[in-house]
Amino acid sequence: MNSSEFRRRGKEMTDFVADYLDGIEGRQVYPDVQPGYLRSLVPSTAPEEPDAFEDIINDVERIIMPGVTHWHSPYFFAYFPSANSYPAMLADMLCGAIGCIGFSWAASPACTELETVMMDWLGKMLKLPEAFLAGEAGEGGGVIQGSASEATLMALLAARTKVTRRLQAASPGLTQGAITEKLVAYSSDQVVATLGTTSCCSFDSLLEVGPICNKEDMWLHIDAAYAGSSFICPEFRHLLNGVEFADSFNFNPHKWLLVNFDCSAMWVKKRTDLIGAFKLDPVYLKHSHQDSGLITDYRHWQLPLGRRFRSLKMWFVFRMYGVKGLQAYIRKHVQLAHEFEHLLHQDPRFEICAEVTLGLVCFRLKGSNKLNEALLERINGTKKIHLVPCHLRDKFVLRFAICSRTVESAHVRLAWEHISQLASDLLGAEKE
Amino acid sequence: MNSSEFRRRGKEMTDFVADYLDGIEGRQVYPDVQPGYLRSLVPSTAPEEPDAFEDIINDVERIIMPGVTHWHSPYFFAYFPSANSYPAMLADMLCGAIGCIGFSWAASPACTELETVMMDWLGKMLKLPEAFLAGEAGEGGGVIQGSASEATLMALLAARTKVTRRLQAASPGLTQGAITEKLVAYSSDQVVATLGTTSCCSFDSLLEVGPICNKEDMWLHIDAAYAGSSFICPEFRHLLNGVEFADSFNFNPHKWLLVNFDCSAMWVKKRTDLIGAFKLDPVYLKHSHQDSGLITDYRHWQLPLGRRFRSLKMWFVFRMYGVKGLQAYIRKHVQLAHEFEHLLHQDPRFEICAEVTLGLVCFRLKGSNKLNEALLERINGTKKIHLVPCHLRDKFVLRFAICSRTVESAHVRLAWEHISQLASDLLGAEKE
Repeated sequence: MNSSEFRRRGKEMTDFVADYLDGIEGRQVYPDVQPGYLRSLVPSTAPEEPDAFEDIINDVERIIMPGVTHWHSPYFFAYFPSANSYPAMLADMLCGAIGCIGFSWAASPACTELETVMMDWLGKMLKLPEAFLAGEAGEGGGVIQGSASEATLMALLAARTKVTRRLQAASPGLTQGAITEKLVAYSSDQVVATLGTTSCCSFDSLLEVGPICNKEDMWLHIDAAYAGSSFICPEFRHLLNGVEFADSFNFNPHKWLLVNFDCSAMWVKKRTDLIGAFKLDPVYLKHSHQDSGLITDYRHWQLPLGRRFRSLKMWFVFRMYGVKGLQAYIRKHVQLAHEFEHLLHQDPRFEICAEVTLGLVCFRLKGSNKLNEALLERINGTKKIHLVPCHLRDKFVLRFAICSRTVESAHVRLAWEHISQLASDLLGAEKE
Repeated sequence: MNSSEFRRRGKEMTDFVADYLDGIEGRQVYPDVQPGYLRSLVPSTAPEEPDAFEDIINDVERIIMPGVTHWHSPYFFAYFPSANSYPAMLADMLCGAIGCIGFSWAASPACTELETVMMDWLGKMLKLPEAFLAGEAGEGGGVIQGSASEATLMALLAARTKVTRRLQAASPGLTQGAITEKLVAYSSDQVVATLGTTSCCSFDSLLEVGPICNKEDMWLHIDAAYAGSSFICPEFRHLLNGVEFADSFNFNPHKWLLVNFDCSAMWVKKRTDLIGAFKLDPVYLKHSHQDSGLITDYRHWQLPLGRRFRSLKMWFVFRMYGVKGLQAYIRKHVQLAHEFEHLLHQDPRFEICAEVTLGLVCFRLKGSNKLNEALLERINGTKKIHLVPCHLRDKFVLRFAICSRTVESAHVRLAWEHISQLASDLLGAEKE
């Protein structure tokens, strides 16, 4: 495909994408396919000669779409949101075209520098303590990781390296193995210190945990994968109080801040803690500025060597929405969650199982786990909306997460009426 | 931004991307900027109100482009290629729009199933042993990782888990720590068993290493990050001989197979070895098919939980190029490398430092490391072309890697004339 064909196909794909998202409400949110459905629809080997673009795009509708769970349907209330916005998609087109692999400053200076500045922008939006920002000569700073799992692993490895070095400096006879065997990682029953857990969006008390960690010289990593985006709103910022005690902090703009996956934002107070654990310097990656102290080589901040120009997505999204637009987006989702909570409150058959703080409502029918499992089966079986469950203190609970960028009050009310009707059917059937 | 504005802006961005790549030869391949250049060009905080799209796209040219190292310039001969093709960019637009997070089969069945089938297609292109393919009921199969580093880490963790379980089964008294301290990972002087090293594209002898690993019950992981793409050509397939002894194998289509970053292809012979090491099953990720044995939940195959619909890129690229088109692309790059090798051979001032097997030529001026460092400094200082060095047996060596999708014989010859002229200048200056 040459550039003139791309000019044509890119415009067709732009319309395909807009048509898909414009019409997503009309698609069944969860697919009907059975495991293995796709293999029989495609050839068993790649074609020797090129296929026509028309055939491929037709196959998207014929083969792919019937097996897609539509995460951006306004009837998708499962898991947590996965960000999706037009500005991020435009930025991703540019990212693909530039196609640089920013493992070092020299590999594409703009890629590294925009990331550092965007992480400062975002840190300021969250009112992170100054120590986490890079600024012009700060010791901290931010980096985009692929996922919260990678950020947690990085924090864990950095913490292990730091404590190992400290112990070996104090007792040079200690082996790495002897130290490793004695290291302990503390976590809550849902993971590291977490703000907004996956099951029920609960919050650990940083103001209690933080001072203990600091006093005992323990690395404190805070994961606010989902909830972090809400901290750009002053009324939710208090949930982040205590972050000043942390060594590292992470949340996922790719969940709730309109920056398409992947974009997991991680900050550290001392960049040397991360760099010390992972420094990799083969000669083919050396460049003249690297020992100047002025530059950032992000390969030392992450597990993979390669990295895309992901900060373009942040730049486009932050500028095209503005902070006020992003705040309005978060507030709308929280308000919709409270609307659903309000509907639940009015129906005595149901109970709410966790405080509704942000965009997640955990609820269940008063009664057995079996009853609630049956309700969820009916809900997901009819495929009008899609939810997933969780366990809270041995109770089987339904999670209603506000996810889609286009979900409105009307969708929430329709979802509620549907759930309520299925509950009536189920309770009626139980009585018979 | 609503969909009607996206329809307009997406088309403008399509043209912007095509204009950028059409005109990339006219841009200076390596930027002039100094560390910290970008921060002064952008505000210190995100805007409160939205910026206009026109301002943003103008800033791409004003702020971003001056700091970009143009990896897709035909004068870029540094590192290794980073794949970039129009079909992959079209697929990425679709991937962004669908925006699913395919951690389980149920999270989007098409995302998982297309990946499994595409990995089979690619495995067949490489003539991988049947044991690595998923097929309809195979024990092996493929997965897309983000990078070769992640694939290597996965293999290492899977190997560790497997051997730990074996030892604990044989001697139940052994602690995890005691075992971990005694585990050994063998590697060559360039890493795991490698086909096509970064420095000089050398090859480990799998036919010697493989049988020893099998006899000693050691996990053998093979990394062919760059070279792997060439194995789709029958004349290079012999470089992969011995893969039948491996437990896991990995290469990066995002380097040399026209599938934009990130797409690192990894196969294992026994999927249970990976899954056993990483199984994660909270109730909110459970689904009705997961215990049927019929489905693949890729979250067990990788470190992160989330994953994009990356197999779309493979599908579009394989179909729009066809196997023959991909083979032709590889062959053209290898032929260009040999053309550069031939030009070097005719100039007695230079020596070639490693056999030219694929698209990389390692060369230097006969003489001191200092002389060659000075030559590279002149080459990268003039910024007409861009190279990086490596060390081979204590010698400072220049790497000339055929990278760009659009590089032609004329560019290689111009690069050679430029290098040759700078060498003359340098040697002349040395004599004075």
